[in-house]
Amino acid sequence: DHVIVLGYGDLTEPILTELTEGDVPFVVIVPDQARAAELSDRGMNVITADPSDEEPLQRAQLADATAVVTATNNDAEDALAVLTARQLRPDVRIVAAATDRENVKKLKRAGADTVISPAAIGGHLLVESALGRGDTEDVAEKILEDEGTTESED
Amino acid sequence: DHVIVLGYGDLTEPILTELTEGDVPFVVIVPDQARAAELSDRGMNVITADPSDEEPLQRAQLADATAVVTATNNDAEDALAVLTARQLRPDVRIVAAATDRENVKKLKRAGADTVISPAAIGGHLLVESALGRGDTEDVAEKILEDEGTTESED
Ligand SMILES: [Ca+2]
Ligand SMILES: [Ca+2]
Repeated sequence: DHVIVLGYGDLTEPILTELTEGDVPFVVIVPDQARAAELSDRGMNVITADPSDEEPLQRAQLADATAVVTATNNDAEDALAVLTARQLRPDVRIVAAATDRENVKKLKRAGADTVISPAAIGGHLLVESALGRGDTEDVAEKILEDEGTTESED
Repeated sequence: DHVIVLGYGDLTEPILTELTEGDVPFVVIVPDQARAAELSDRGMNVITADPSDEEPLQRAQLADATAVVTATNNDAEDALAVLTARQLRPDVRIVAAATDRENVKKLKRAGADTVISPAAIGGHLLVESALGRGDTEDVAEKILEDEGTTESED
């Protein structure tokens, strides 16, 4: 009934914030000791290990997990982590973020159920806004607000 | 009637793709010579310079530009570029991407009209998907498809 977050990148803090605010139990597996200590000091469940190794995934109780999220800035590491998680548990939900849009298909082939490309979404919203089409911030805020997790709510 | 793209980061290729596919004229200002040469080889209008200097912005005809887009991986550089562009032209549309969500407000204060946080949007969509809420890829594809610029159209 918990979520396993693999690695640490630009998307990780927003992910951890959403999980915390949603009262969703989670474990983070990060290779960097300083980062692990910092997250642990903030009260999070942390395992200091390579997120694409089998042992830490088992220690994080992958067998009972609801989902695995992998969203580092390194798509190759994400792919390796997805392959490991999928091999250990064919039926767990795996979601991933492709830093490079071209890696969406590869991450799916590695076993991710859902892959999004924040850069593609962000680039699109920026260009729409630059050309004065629609209200980009409204679109962005609507996405963020649909579960009431944006800072602008009050 | 053109768009000026400042700097080069993870969001830049999606931005350049959208502008090219939309037949929107644009100029890219990048500090890195190798990157500038590569973009120029691909037929783009490129100025090799610091995107927060005044001179290249004037050379890129900021006076006649529709909009300025700044979306590097370094929010401090984005902020400096926004400040420069806003100072040179109080009425141009400026859009920016905050790599760190906490910098949204600072980039607005620097003068950006619209600031989005791709990491916040991406993190939110990933958590929604991890928890099995809604169809995240549908949401993501709907965003990308509303102007027909996604790869999945056919
Ligand atoms: Ca990634
Ligand atoms: Ca940025």
